[in-house]
Amino acid sequence: MRLSGIKAVLFDTYGTVVDWRSSVIAEGRALGERKGIEGIDWDAFTDAWKAAYRPYMDEVNSGERPWTKNDVLQRERLDEIVGEFGIEGLSEHDRDDLNRAWQRLKPWPGSISGLTRIKAKVLIGAFSNGPFDQLVNMAKYSGLPWDFIISADNFKLYKPKPELYLGTIDLLGGDAERVLLVAAHNYDLANARKHGIRTAFVCRPTMFGPDTDKEQEAEDDWDIITDSIEGVADAMGV
Amino acid sequence: MRLSGIKAVLFDTYGTVVDWRSSVIAEGRALGERKGIEGIDWDAFTDAWKAAYRPYMDEVNSGERPWTKNDVLQRERLDEIVGEFGIEGLSEHDRDDLNRAWQRLKPWPGSISGLTRIKAKVLIGAFSNGPFDQLVNMAKYSGLPWDFIISADNFKLYKPKPELYLGTIDLLGGDAERVLLVAAHNYDLANARKHGIRTAFVCRPTMFGPDTDKEQEAEDDWDIITDSIEGVADAMGV
Repeated sequence: MRLSGIKAVLFDTYGTVVDWRSSVIAEGRALGERKGIEGIDWDAFTDAWKAAYRPYMDEVNSGERPWTKNDVLQRERLDEIVGEFGIEGLSEHDRDDLNRAWQRLKPWPGSISGLTRIKAKVLIGAFSNGPFDQLVNMAKYSGLPWDFIISADNFKLYKPKPELYLGTIDLLGGDAERVLLVAAHNYDLANARKHGIRTAFVCRPTMFGPDTDKEQEAEDDWDIITDSIEGVADAMGV
Repeated sequence: MRLSGIKAVLFDTYGTVVDWRSSVIAEGRALGERKGIEGIDWDAFTDAWKAAYRPYMDEVNSGERPWTKNDVLQRERLDEIVGEFGIEGLSEHDRDDLNRAWQRLKPWPGSISGLTRIKAKVLIGAFSNGPFDQLVNMAKYSGLPWDFIISADNFKLYKPKPELYLGTIDLLGGDAERVLLVAAHNYDLANARKHGIRTAFVCRPTMFGPDTDKEQEAEDDWDIITDSIEGVADAMGV
């Protein structure tokens, strides 16, 4: 991996930089305790909530549904699973606040220190399907030191639509091979590579919970393969 | 001015936050000295360069010219005025580097400290006709502590096209009156106000040089009228 050519490093955010699962589970549990709601498996609740993420975005990408920001999709799904899990007594305010759990996410160990090391040498930015304002709020809440934020909102389409990769290359000056994408999702890297972007896989085997077989290893010969953002900084020699 | 409602403050950048004119003049002079180029009025050169900015963007906004990033327009104009001023001996590398002077701009006194005060309370972002990567590089070079950057590149149109104001409101969650635009340009504030954004005028009477009659005063009853970013922070009570 030559660092010399890279001028900007993009980071997928949910799962790659922050641990959405344990953060959202904790918020669900805390809400349950505050409201005296008992007997809910908040792990299963969170997994069910997250499971709608991809199908909803695919509806937008296929044109079946008009452009809809991810927080609106998340909020819609929340109403459904609150019913599915038989949760009662949640006001609109409670639901809106729980929906905002997605912008109060804990960075994985080594994320902030790794980002800080990389930022000292090159530009760093979020590159995410999350809503623009949610990513901005999350950066502030979680202390993610982005130089810039690029969201699906900027293109009104979701990854892996080519418009996001090509549009981001263009925003960064047009030279794909001077851009590196860091992601815990093999599909994201595969699509970035199609358009000439360099690739770093960060293995997050518990990202989807303890009993998943998803994203357990690199599925191609990515330019960097590691298990933390510190590991990316190490591989870049920064 | 109630601060309570504002959740994000947008800043026009060139002229409002940074002093492009003295910075570009200084780079022109330094280049002239390095290359032994004499007898050039670098103030007039810089003013001539900047003067093409608006007409070129208007050509894009009218559809006369396809979408073209501002650094490409600036570079095209540079070749013309190098000829007009009879400057000889500048290589392509010299010209590319001089063009990048537009991302090495000195903040006005009070800009960094004012931004830092406002950022402690709400989100702050660049909202500019400058190219996205140029704005990111400038933030890093000049120490502008943006939470986010929104560029004309994100819309492939230039201010004052409504798409920029409406699209930015949408990126920030859809509520125009919770957004404040800070600008040294009355036209920018007038267009922001049309779409419900709140307005702060920062008077920069020497922005276009010592002998201009442009932007000498507030041309409407903007929500805040002041002469520095510190002044905006004062008016917001932060």
